[in-house]
Amino acid sequence: MHTLPSLLAAINNYAAAHPFPATPRELYEPCDYMLALGGKRLRPAMLLMAYELFHDNVEQALPAAWAVELFHNFTLMHDDIMDAAPLRRGQPTVHTRWNTTTGILSGDVMLIHAYRHLARFDDSVIVADLIDTFNRVAIEVCEGQQYDVNFETRQNVTLPEYIRMIELKTAVLLGGALEMGAMCARAHHEQALHLYEFGRLAGIAFQIQDDLLDTYGDPEKFGKQVGGDILQNKKTFLVLKTLELASEADRQELEYWMQTGADKPVKISAVRAIFDRNGIPELVFAEKQRYQEEAFGHLAAVEVPEARKTLLKGTMEELLVREY
Amino acid sequence: MHTLPSLLAAINNYAAAHPFPATPRELYEPCDYMLALGGKRLRPAMLLMAYELFHDNVEQALPAAWAVELFHNFTLMHDDIMDAAPLRRGQPTVHTRWNTTTGILSGDVMLIHAYRHLARFDDSVIVADLIDTFNRVAIEVCEGQQYDVNFETRQNVTLPEYIRMIELKTAVLLGGALEMGAMCARAHHEQALHLYEFGRLAGIAFQIQDDLLDTYGDPEKFGKQVGGDILQNKKTFLVLKTLELASEADRQELEYWMQTGADKPVKISAVRAIFDRNGIPELVFAEKQRYQEEAFGHLAAVEVPEARKTLLKGTMEELLVREY
Repeated sequence: MHTLPSLLAAINNYAAAHPFPATPRELYEPCDYMLALGGKRLRPAMLLMAYELFHDNVEQALPAAWAVELFHNFTLMHDDIMDAAPLRRGQPTVHTRWNTTTGILSGDVMLIHAYRHLARFDDSVIVADLIDTFNRVAIEVCEGQQYDVNFETRQNVTLPEYIRMIELKTAVLLGGALEMGAMCARAHHEQALHLYEFGRLAGIAFQIQDDLLDTYGDPEKFGKQVGGDILQNKKTFLVLKTLELASEADRQELEYWMQTGADKPVKISAVRAIFDRNGIPELVFAEKQRYQEEAFGHLAAVEVPEARKTLLKGTMEELLVREY
Repeated sequence: MHTLPSLLAAINNYAAAHPFPATPRELYEPCDYMLALGGKRLRPAMLLMAYELFHDNVEQALPAAWAVELFHNFTLMHDDIMDAAPLRRGQPTVHTRWNTTTGILSGDVMLIHAYRHLARFDDSVIVADLIDTFNRVAIEVCEGQQYDVNFETRQNVTLPEYIRMIELKTAVLLGGALEMGAMCARAHHEQALHLYEFGRLAGIAFQIQDDLLDTYGDPEKFGKQVGGDILQNKKTFLVLKTLELASEADRQELEYWMQTGADKPVKISAVRAIFDRNGIPELVFAEKQRYQEEAFGHLAAVEVPEARKTLLKGTMEELLVREY
């Protein structure tokens, strides 16, 4: 059994041993740049952890793990263009440092290289299964991004629609990574499905937590500007829950603030006050807990010795039990 | 054995029987729109013709054929953004009719759906082989597009670099389609390789012919504005051949015209005069013929009865023997 640092080292070694082609440099340099911006490599690490529930030789699963990381970075590169985001992790985004053409084309080729890594698994039956799961999840991620785009200009987004959007846009990829780890280990279909559900539900819980932390997080621990969602008038879980539950007066006040570019601290504390007097943070936290508990129920159902689950369980708990 | 119209009907029936998901409409409507703009469906038809060299039941190869068509349309959708092209086949391009976000995201999902169709083949060993070929070709197409982008701002593009660019950007996809048709038919590797080379070399010949027709084609038969490449100062095969062969004076005159926005007919006839007095159309035609003959040599080497080759041979000849 590996530790998280040793899994991350294995991922980095695999990536270093399988670089992009040397030319055309203009195509691949932005791919290297994107990957070098960092990121926690959590999806590939969790894919390996899922593999390790069943077998020790994680090398088998490294191509699939790296494929998932490349896919994730492809989505970030294209999403940054769609969001017109100037920065990612404090550095210029690819389309800002180069241009939109580069962001599109380097993203495209990174996606295709993800498939190339997937196809490196040495058993073609497993390759076909991996590609089926990867395709399903990749399509869902695009669909989730489309819903996210749609919601920006839609006035009547419901909470179930929002949850479906975050599920598609981010949670299914974590689920798919865990499922693919189990598939590489030739685990039974039922076990792989439990792992998919574990990742999917934990991914939803994580996104709900992210909405909560954006408004209520400790500024020193959160890493992003607290209140950013409020300033950007985002239709987060907190906003949609308020629109669902609050009095007509509070709903109108929230909608007023969402159309107003006021002084930043004034706007943030006014919106937080609406959330607070409607008990929204507690309700949202409870919702996050519900998804989290359902998620861990699926991990518990995976039929391997509990000792083998320690690393995966601990890593996910750390992600989902953040201080507020 | 089928006729070309019956193969095209089979492709259209397959597409109709396997539509994109109904939602999100904003994601898939642009995909349908792009496919409805037309196009000759030549790549999927030729994939089926390659299959039919070996077996009659072309239904087997329809998913791979449609995958190639979806991939081609994905590249068109993204290339149109990169080229800032307002029109395709006389209709607004996707990013013009909708926006850049739509062009990127609908293109992305169309590419992933291409993989989904590929994976529908009922033998996972063949699926893995198809995906290997598809990945290789898809990566080369992106690389070719990158070289094309690079060449726009480079002053010293050589003829071999130009041929390599058109080979990657367009010819390998035709080669890959034919190779995949042979793979679906479980043909021997050597036969599949001859078909790949047939398509690749014919694809290069076709692009060289396209450069020639753009300047020397019969306006009524060519379908595009004759002289368009000259007006856009494109570094075509004709230009690069002239820069390679002509006198210093003619080279300088050509470079003068390529930096000058003169009256259109004046510019076109001045540049044509430079080509003409250097014997460029004849040289370029001879080059095209060389690739074409090498291509048909590979078709001749495919070890199936000559009668089975009639449709593939005739269709490719029709593409490559256009009147000037």
